[in-house]
Formats: sequence, structure tokens, C-alpha cells
Amino acid sequence: MPDRIRVGVLGATGTVGQRFVELLADHPWFELAALAASDTSAGRRYGDVCRWLPSSDMPPGVADMIVEETAPTLGCDVVFSALPGDLAGSVEEAFAAAGYAVFSNAGAHRRDPDVPLLIPEVNPDHLALIVGQRARRGWDRGFIVTNPNCSAVMLTVALAPIQAAFGLRSVLVSTMQGLSGAGYPGVPSLDALDNVIPYISGEEDKLSFEPRKMLGKFNGAGVELADFSISAHCNRVPTREGHLETVSAALERPATPQEIVEVWRAWRPLPQQLNLPTAPQPALVVREEKDRPQPRLDRDAGRGMAVSVGRVRPCEVLDIKFITLGHNTLRGAAGASILNAELMLAQGLVDW
Amino acid sequence: MPDRIRVGVLGATGTVGQRFVELLADHPWFELAALAASDTSAGRRYGDVCRWLPSSDMPPGVADMIVEETAPTLGCDVVFSALPGDLAGSVEEAFAAAGYAVFSNAGAHRRDPDVPLLIPEVNPDHLALIVGQRARRGWDRGFIVTNPNCSAVMLTVALAPIQAAFGLRSVLVSTMQGLSGAGYPGVPSLDALDNVIPYISGEEDKLSFEPRKMLGKFNGAGVELADFSISAHCNRVPTREGHLETVSAALERPATPQEIVEVWRAWRPLPQQLNLPTAPQPALVVREEKDRPQPRLDRDAGRGMAVSVGRVRPCEVLDIKFITLGHNTLRGAAGASILNAELMLAQGLVDW
Amino acid sequence: MPDRIRVGVLGATGTVGQRFVELLADHPWFELAALAASDTSAGRRYGDVCRWLPSSDMPPGVADMIVEETAPTLGCDVVFSALPGDLAGSVEEAFAAAGYAVFSNAGAHRRDPDVPLLIPEVNPDHLALIVGQRARRGWDRGFIVTNPNCSAVMLTVALAPIQAAFGLRSVLVSTMQGLSGAGYPGVPSLDALDNVIPYISGEEDKLSFEPRKMLGKFNGAGVELADFSISAHCNRVPTREGHLETVSAALERPATPQEIVEVWRAWRPLPQQLNLPTAPQPALVVREEKDRPQPRLDRDAGRGMAVSVGRVRPCEVLDIKFITLGHNTLRGAAGASILNAELMLAQGLVDW
Amino acid sequence: MPDRIRVGVLGATGTVGQRFVELLADHPWFELAALAASDTSAGRRYGDVCRWLPSSDMPPGVADMIVEETAPTLGCDVVFSALPGDLAGSVEEAFAAAGYAVFSNAGAHRRDPDVPLLIPEVNPDHLALIVGQRARRGWDRGFIVTNPNCSAVMLTVALAPIQAAFGLRSVLVSTMQGLSGAGYPGVPSLDALDNVIPYISGEEDKLSFEPRKMLGKFNGAGVELADFSISAHCNRVPTREGHLETVSAALERPATPQEIVEVWRAWRPLPQQLNLPTAPQPALVVREEKDRPQPRLDRDAGRGMAVSVGRVRPCEVLDIKFITLGHNTLRGAAGASILNAELMLAQGLVDW
Repeated sequence: MPDRIRVGVLGATGTVGQRFVELLADHPWFELAALAASDTSAGRRYGDVCRWLPSSDMPPGVADMIVEETAPTLGCDVVFSALPGDLAGSVEEAFAAAGYAVFSNAGAHRRDPDVPLLIPEVNPDHLALIVGQRARRGWDRGFIVTNPNCSAVMLTVALAPIQAAFGLRSVLVSTMQGLSGAGYPGVPSLDALDNVIPYISGEEDKLSFEPRKMLGKFNGAGVELADFSISAHCNRVPTREGHLETVSAALERPATPQEIVEVWRAWRPLPQQLNLPTAPQPALVVREEKDRPQPRLDRDAGRGMAVSVGRVRPCEVLDIKFITLGHNTLRGAAGASILNAELMLAQGLVDW
Repeated sequence: MPDRIRVGVLGATGTVGQRFVELLADHPWFELAALAASDTSAGRRYGDVCRWLPSSDMPPGVADMIVEETAPTLGCDVVFSALPGDLAGSVEEAFAAAGYAVFSNAGAHRRDPDVPLLIPEVNPDHLALIVGQRARRGWDRGFIVTNPNCSAVMLTVALAPIQAAFGLRSVLVSTMQGLSGAGYPGVPSLDALDNVIPYISGEEDKLSFEPRKMLGKFNGAGVELADFSISAHCNRVPTREGHLETVSAALERPATPQEIVEVWRAWRPLPQQLNLPTAPQPALVVREEKDRPQPRLDRDAGRGMAVSVGRVRPCEVLDIKFITLGHNTLRGAAGASILNAELMLAQGLVDW
Repeated sequence: MPDRIRVGVLGATGTVGQRFVELLADHPWFELAALAASDTSAGRRYGDVCRWLPSSDMPPGVADMIVEETAPTLGCDVVFSALPGDLAGSVEEAFAAAGYAVFSNAGAHRRDPDVPLLIPEVNPDHLALIVGQRARRGWDRGFIVTNPNCSAVMLTVALAPIQAAFGLRSVLVSTMQGLSGAGYPGVPSLDALDNVIPYISGEEDKLSFEPRKMLGKFNGAGVELADFSISAHCNRVPTREGHLETVSAALERPATPQEIVEVWRAWRPLPQQLNLPTAPQPALVVREEKDRPQPRLDRDAGRGMAVSVGRVRPCEVLDIKFITLGHNTLRGAAGASILNAELMLAQGLVDW
Repeated sequence: MPDRIRVGVLGATGTVGQRFVELLADHPWFELAALAASDTSAGRRYGDVCRWLPSSDMPPGVADMIVEETAPTLGCDVVFSALPGDLAGSVEEAFAAAGYAVFSNAGAHRRDPDVPLLIPEVNPDHLALIVGQRARRGWDRGFIVTNPNCSAVMLTVALAPIQAAFGLRSVLVSTMQGLSGAGYPGVPSLDALDNVIPYISGEEDKLSFEPRKMLGKFNGAGVELADFSISAHCNRVPTREGHLETVSAALERPATPQEIVEVWRAWRPLPQQLNLPTAPQPALVVREEKDRPQPRLDRDAGRGMAVSVGRVRPCEVLDIKFITLGHNTLRGAAGASILNAELMLAQGLVDW
């Protein structure tokens, strides 16, 4: 890989956009060449219009970049989209039509039948949808690949090895999601402190659908949704980062907690085999302690890209229960999208 | 009721003990006559040995009371026990044997077949167990009545009207429990801040058992456990007070969310009919907002004695799902025990 | 006082406006007759446009009140202003010109030489400014009285008895202010959690000036600023309510810590003598513990209207040091303004 | 420096001890060869007895080390002491007498006239005290060097360039200190959440003394305390890490805020010149934003070893005021001690 690929970020000033910038500023394969944001920011220095939230300083060089308009005139081949959902739909299509590879963190195209909803560890074969996507939409070079909602990542990664080994009949999940998931300014401190907000708009619906698409089967033409139901309770808790989820699942074939742990430990999916730059080693961290994973202690595992699981035990109502946790703005957003791009690049699926 | 009943508190310096003191200091039926605590505190002023935690000031008069030893020589007829579980078993028996009415918040006797595990709104008929309890243990006047674990109260109160109307086949619950439930000093701030601890020792086991005893049937001789299974995930979140629980349930007979709301709203159990001093009116507060109940906004409903429920909707895996919330050291501990005593007094079940 | 005075609230939907509503809903002298807010809220039910933040439920009856436009056509004689600073100036003048008694929590007129900046316990004689105010501005009946910035109240109340007994030469104060002081949505939770923000716009300037006006002398024509300097450091800390301030002061005449405590304890200002409904008894709570006052434990003292002080000790640089604390949206805002109105009513200073 | 120096940690299982372990596990000059803790831990695996608190995982290899007794039989030449204050005095002396170089974070010997209280950036010349220390105490090879209290570091580093350029007459400081400063379990979450604790045992006294020793002059025989007074208010706020301090100072010669910023920016002390492994570059980070430094955003500057300052402005009572911030368990404790050892090693002051 002689030269680095030129990439841009759409929605670069938001919380997820900043995570893209943080991760791309020093990436071995990608060169951060363009930052796009709203019209009020366009034409100004990134350092002047972006209220930088990560605790690390803004990467040197980035502050002086001039924010551009969100239009397919950016000087790059790949764009990462951190656009808000209502804007993302048409803008991402315009970029793809203009020949850009679009890796989107937005929800707009996740349910499109011809758009891969991708976790590289889980369903890399779904990338084959792109052939039909281009054909149907008349795009010759560009395409859209999406990553799932943050809370869906932690659940799906934990379920994938279980589904493969034992099958799934139903899943009940209750989430405790960090504040950064609501963006910035996001949740007012007067609502967050000493409180839990037992509702996140649209989240339960996403969590009921997205894992079933990712764990579904590509049949040559499209993806058949996995044949199990998911019921979700979504809650916002006063932690900064990290989504923790309690999960109960009914299986097609019986499994002991120890067998679940074994399939998790044995899991070595494609990005780890390919040793992609952003792929955590291992993908799944199995905690043995009775009170782990915890958001503060485990969200940064694998530089924020590992999913941590633990507390597997029999469920009195379904078959097994356990907990799963991951970093919502890294594994659950910007890092997920970058890993998607790395996978395609490593597999030669793009002709950049 | 001409004269007030003299009562004492065992374990009076702990977090629950303080709540007993707070509630009893100004009670219309009870006179706080004795405070007992560990040997290191005995003989000293309550105000000197108790690190008072409620935001209200310590009630006047109480600070000057001399803490006594935890022995059945207290000058009162009723004792409320906030003893730690390992001590409570034998101490509470000694008090009952000596003729005291013992209302216990401890876990030691909750599973004894001859000890009522009581929520006055739910299973007042279980008090009939006391006849056999006295006979079997050779106590002529004293007895032990327990209230459930804090997280079991919020769940059981919400389930009781549903069980009565539609029957229950299984229940899956995931809790988000406030810090005060761990006592004082309890959870270190370095563990609590910006974190969730997905484990509470013994809690899931209690939550799987206690509601089934309370919702069980008294058959003249004993209580038959209710015939449904409960699976629990218990978590400690960084809120001060209030246990919030997400619940999914399978019913014996189908019910729409609206029908669930109707049976909740129509519920008017015995303590509310008797207008007991500590009984909230209503017992169940049904919130209509999409994001309520919340710990900070709803834990104080009914002066901390009401259980608040909301977000009833169909469950994709079981039949219905909803959330329930209550104040863990009031409805879930001290207030529960006092309400138990009020019920027995109102029903003439004690010959004080 | 046969009939209750009809009052209105300007800016009724904000955090301070809600506190006015909470306090006035059940007031013995005032009847809450009008709620005014921005044009987008006008004409709609208060319960529909107001995101209610206090943990108590919205007072019954208030939810159904129709919000009116912010214009001097309200059906009341007195208005309490919780307007934002940029609007307050001209709007409050329009109300006063129209004959309303205006009690303002806004900053717009606090520095006007002819407007009393009032803490009833501290400078009730400054109300005499109203005579000149009316004359100069051509108002025959209406007037404007302001209460100070929240952080200035806790400082000034603690200083007043010290100034009277020992004189003041200089004051250095460092504040730790609760989140509610920034309004709603106010401080984003991502900025507040696990953090301190060492800057509050305009606050240090207010804190340097306002106590000097309140502790200044009314000379028959105007108020001479008290002749001592104040230096302030203002910080936002992650507590919900309560402003805690560390104070060092140089005195004109030497005083021991014990003498400071004595003048605090002996202080019995006018509102307490008049037993005004909102006046706390005592005005100053002197805590003896080495680690009190604390925001959570002491902000509600005197139903949120008392100022709590403690930790008086010699200062190695100035003369004495101590800490002071009060509830910022009650004593520091809505309650302060209502107490101002009570004082004037009790003194017959208004011809309502 | 061919071989790495073998070092041990006393009090290795506490919060500061863990920070020593974290920093030494991968140190270029030191090899972590021994871990000592209380008798109940001795003889057991470190991984089994230590409740690891940093969010990074315990360094590989360390978990399997066997904890030893706290006695001068450890297989190393240098010990870092994270002992509690009451134990540290005699134990550290025993180690020094046995020939160990003792770098102590404990308070026991900080005020000993013959023990350097060292910040390498501030008073490296005070190391000359060791000659007399050895002579007086009859130690031929061992010695004790201490680092200051955590809150004293942030203050002293900020003051040192000011003192050098303009002189100091008096300093008034009010702190907002993170929870980790109280150790583990430390502050109960029920005391910390939604609160400030305006008292830290012994802290104000340390803060009044230690900077004066470090900023004092070594006169060939001993250290003359700097001739200015310090008054401190110390507070515990609900942040995890980071001590933020508001400071007002009277100078001997006038200085504008801009001149203060210039001497800070121009400061390049010895550890930075020597490029010591743990020395941050730069030592002082001057923030220009109106609301920085903040604990969450700035505590990790320079890998937790830089002190961040900002908000310099004239003080209405003394001459100037500003804020200073640093990471209390890195710059304020373990990192400080390691930097002390690096300085002595680099200067050839030890014959290891």
C-alpha cells in the first residue's frame, strides 16, 4: 500500500465527527484531506468552529484545516459520514453518485435492502450487496456502506459467535447507554445528574431490527433477516462513554455458560485475521470477574474497539443471560466506520 | 387509638435505620422510644454516634437519645429491624421470643415458610402465617414479619394487579439501582462516578424468589409460591436514591398495554382503603410521558411510598414490557416495614 | 390582610420562573394570577409548554393556566420577573410605567442608581430609593426592585453582620456553583460530569460589585458603595443546586472566629422580626461541624431560604476566613424576590 | 546507562501504589523488581490482592509478582513509598538506614529540615540537603527524598516562575480536588455525588507550609522558608482526578497578566533541559481559553505530568489572580516521586 488514501469527514464538528478526526489524523492507510460541516462553519478554520470534546488535544495540523461545504467537491476518494440522520440520506447518495466511497455512521440507509449494514467481524460477505447497489442506482464507482447504531454493535458482536454455534430464537436486551451517545450539547446536566432517563428516541426500534439484518444470510441477491425476535429497553445513564447491555437469549440448541465462553474465546473473525489497523486483538474480551465488564474500566479495551462480555449464566426465563459492553463513539460509531473502510481496502473491493 | 405505641429501632445508625428514625419521629401512631445499635455505639448519644445522611436535619429530641444494646430489654412493644443480614437471624428471634412484635427489613427470615413476607397492598392475607409461626416456635406474643428486598418491592407492586387480571407465566427484569441501597459508606465514589456496576451480591437471587412468595397463595397452612419464573439482571447506577427496573412479562391471558394501564389505575388495595398513615394515595402512579418515571423526578411520589410505572408496550419476545420505579430506602425498606406495622395495628392483629 | 394580592410571573417557563410558580402557588399573601412567557408559548397551556424541573409535581391548577404575552396587560398588580437579562431592561420598565410593582431577578437594573438592589435582611432602608425612582422616571405607582445575583446573596448575607460589627476592608471569594444556576438546558452533561468549569460569564464582575451596593449607605439621595474591594473566582461544579463559597476577609477592627460566630448568631434582621412568610428562622444557620455546610445537606435549610455558614478560622493572608452556602434558585433567585415583595407589603410601602 | 535500576514499591496495592506500578512497569531506566504491602497481602500474587483501579489493564507480568513484607529485605536499590502517613515515618527510615534510596510520597518526613521536599522543576538544589541528612543520621548510602502533597504541586509549579521574576508577598488559594486524592475506598459515593465537601483533613496546613519550603533558599546548611504567607481553603469536588485551584497573589514587584504569561511561557527548568523520561514538555501549559484549564480536559496534559494554568487577570484585593490544575495521582504523587528519582540518577547523585 504505497500511498495513503485521501479521505474526508462529513459532519466533522460533531461528537462523532471529532472521533473520526481523532482516529484518522494518525492513520497508517488514510490521509485526512477534507473536513466538511454546515454552511455556518464552511470557510473557517476547524480549530475555530469546533468545540473539541475528546480529552486528548486536537491533532496538530487539523486545527488549521479550512472546513468545506458538504458537497461532492471534496478533494478525496473516501468520505466518512457523521451527518445527522435527516440530512444524511440525500447527501450520502449525492456523494456516492459522484463516485465517492461513502462509509456512513448515519441511520438513513441502514435499512436499504441494497446497502450493507456492516460489522467486519460479523458479516463481511454482505459487502457483495454493493454490486446490486451500483447497478440499481446507476453508480459506476461510488457506493454506500453503513455501520449500525451504537447499541446494536455491542449486542451483535456478542451474539454472532453464539448464533453460529447454537442458533438464536429470541433476545431480550436492556441497555444502559453513556451520555456521549446523545451528541453535544446533548443531554442537559440537570437531566443527567443523579438520574436515569428510560427512553432514547428511536433506539429500541433500531435495536430490534439492525442485529437481525447483520446476522441475516446473504443469499446471492439480498439479505434475509435472521429469524429471531429482539425486544429492547433503552436507557440513558449518567456515564460519559460506554454502552452496557444486559442480555437474555433463547437458543436453538442448548448451551452451558462454559460453552458460550468457549465459542467467544475461540472466535477469530476476518478483521483480526487480516490484522486490520483498527481491529482490536481480540475482538471480544471475555471478563471472568463477577462484576465486569464495567463502563469505566472496560470501554477503552482494544483502544475502544473491543467488545467486552461477561457474567454468562443460565436464564430462568430464556436460556442464557450475560452482559456486553463497548465504547459507543469508537466501536459504536467512528471506529466502526473506519474498520469498514479498512476491510474493503484490504480485500481489494475498491478500485481507489 | 388513644395512646401511641412505643417502638424501637434495631440497627438505628445505618442508612435504613436512619430512615426508620426519620419516619417514626413524627408518626401519628408510634412513639420512638428506643434506639439500639452495635456495642461501640451503645451508651452514647445518638447524635454523637450517627453520621446522619438524609438531607433533612435529624429530628429534634432524637439526637439526645442514648443508644442501647441490641438486646430484648428495650422499653417498647414493637421493634423495627434494620440489622445487617448476618446478625438479624438470631437477634430477631430473641426479640420475638421475648414478646416483641418484630418488623424486619433484613433478609434473614424472608424465606422462612412460617414468616410473612409482606407488602400490605399485595398479600395482607399472608399475615395468617403468624398463628403457625407462634405455635411452631413457642412464642406466645411476639412474632416476626418481614418486608422484601428493595428491588422486589417495585417489581411486585407493579405485577400484582397484572397477575390478578391476566396471570403471569414469566418475568424478565433488569434493574438500575440507586447508591443508597448499598448502605453507608457503601459504594466508593471512585467506583460509582462515570460508571455502572453490573453486579449486586445476592440481589438477583432475591429478586427471582421473593415476588413469587408474595404473589403466592396462602392455602390455610402455608404459602404456595406463584407458578412463574423470574430472571433478573441487577445493576448499580450512579443515582443517589431510587430503583428503576425494566420489565418484560409473559401473561396467561392476552392483554393490551391499555388494559394493563386500566388494571393499574383501577387498583385500590387494602392500605389505601384503610387510609393507613404511611400508605400513598394512590399506591401506583401511572405516568403517561414517554420518558417517565425517572429516579430524580418520581422517587419522591407519595412521600417516597408510591411505586411509579410507565412505558407499557408490547414485548417482541414475551407479551408486554414496561418500567417500574420506587424509592429504595423508603418504599423499599423503612417505609415498607412501618406500613406493615400499621396494617397489623389497623386490623387488630396485635394485642398491644 | 384580607385579600390576597394578584401577582404574575414574567419568564414563567424557565428554571427561575418555575421556582416562582412553585413558591407562589401556595403563598398566604399572593395569588398567582398570570403567567407570561415568550411568544411561542403565549396562548398555550402552561402544562404543555413548560418542561417542569422541580422534583415536586407541578402545582394543581397551574398546568391549566394559559400563558400570556409579556406585555403590561396582565391581570395583576405585582409581577415577578425571571426574564433573561437582555430582555428584562425595557420590559420591566414598561411594566413599571404601566403601574405594576416589578420585583426583578434579572440583572438589567441592578446597577441603576435609583433602583434598590435588595436583600430584606441586609438593606431594607434602600427601598427609599423608590421615591426618587418614580420622580425621575415619571412613574406614579409602579416601580422596580431587584434582587442580587445568586452568588452575591450567600456572600452578602454572611458579610452583613461582620461589616456591622467589625467593618470590612477587602474580601476574596472563590465559588463552587450548582448547575441549576445556568438555567435549562444550561450546562451540557458532557461538560459537567467529572469536571469543573472555572468560568461563568459575567459572574465575577457581578460578585465584585453587588455586595458593595447592598452593604453601602443610603444617604438620603442615593446609595454610596461600601468602601471595600471584592475579588471573585467563579466556578461551576457538578452539583444540582446550591452555591458554596470560600471567603477570606480583611476587617477594619480585629475579630476572633468566636466573635464572628457570635455576631452571626445574634443577628436577627427585619424580615425575621416581622415574621415574613418566606423569611427563614434563623436567617443564618451557623454550622459547627468541621465539614459543613455542604450543598446537599444544607441547601434546603429554612426551606431553601437560609444561608448556612461555617468553618470560621483565622486567615494567614487577610484576617478571617469561612465558607457560606445557600440555595441558588430559592434564596438566590425566586425566593429572594418574593421576600422583597413581602417586606414591602408588610411595611405598607405599596398602595395595592 | 547500561542496566536498568532495580526498584520496589512500598504500599503497592493502594491508589498511589498502583500508579507507581503503572508508571514503572514500562520505564526506560527502572526495573520493577519488588512490591511490598501489608502483612495480609504479603506472600500472595499482586493480581489477587490488588483491586486495580486505573482504566488501563494491570501491566502484564505484574499480576504474577508475589507481594513481599514491608521490610528492608527487598531485592532492589531504590524504593518508592506510597505508605500511609502513620506508617511511613519509621519504615522509610529503616529502609534508608539499610542503604536504600527512598523516594517518598508520604507526609511523614516532608518537614524534616534535612530531608529535601522536591519538585525537580522548582528546587533541584535542595538535594544538597542529603549530605547533612546522611551525616546526621549515620546513613552511608541510603537517604530519603520526599515529594509534596498533591495540591501543593500544582500551586508551587505555577508560583515558581512568578516568584523568580516578581517576588511573592502572599498567596490565597482555594482548591477543588478530585476524589482519587482520598484513596480507595476513600470518599463514599453518597457523600460525593451532587455535593462538595469543604474540608480535607490536614490539607490546608500542608498547603500553607510546603510551597514555602520548596520555594525557600538553600543556604549551604539548610533551607530558609520563603518569606510569604499562604492561606488555603481545601474542598473535595465530585471529579475523579485532577486538582483545580484558584489563586490570588500579592507580588513584590508589579506585573501585568501578560508579563505573568510570559514568564510562564519562558520557563524551561532543569528536568525539561535534561529531557528526563517522565518530565513533561513543557512543564507548564498555558491555556488561552477563557474557561480552561478544566479537570477533564487538561489533567492528562503531558501524560498527566504537566501543570496547566490560565485565566490570569488582575486581582481586586491582592495583585494578580489565576487558576492552576494538575493530575493529582500522577503529577501530584507517583509521577512526582519517579521524576525525583530520575533527576538524581541523571545528575549522578546516586552511586547505584
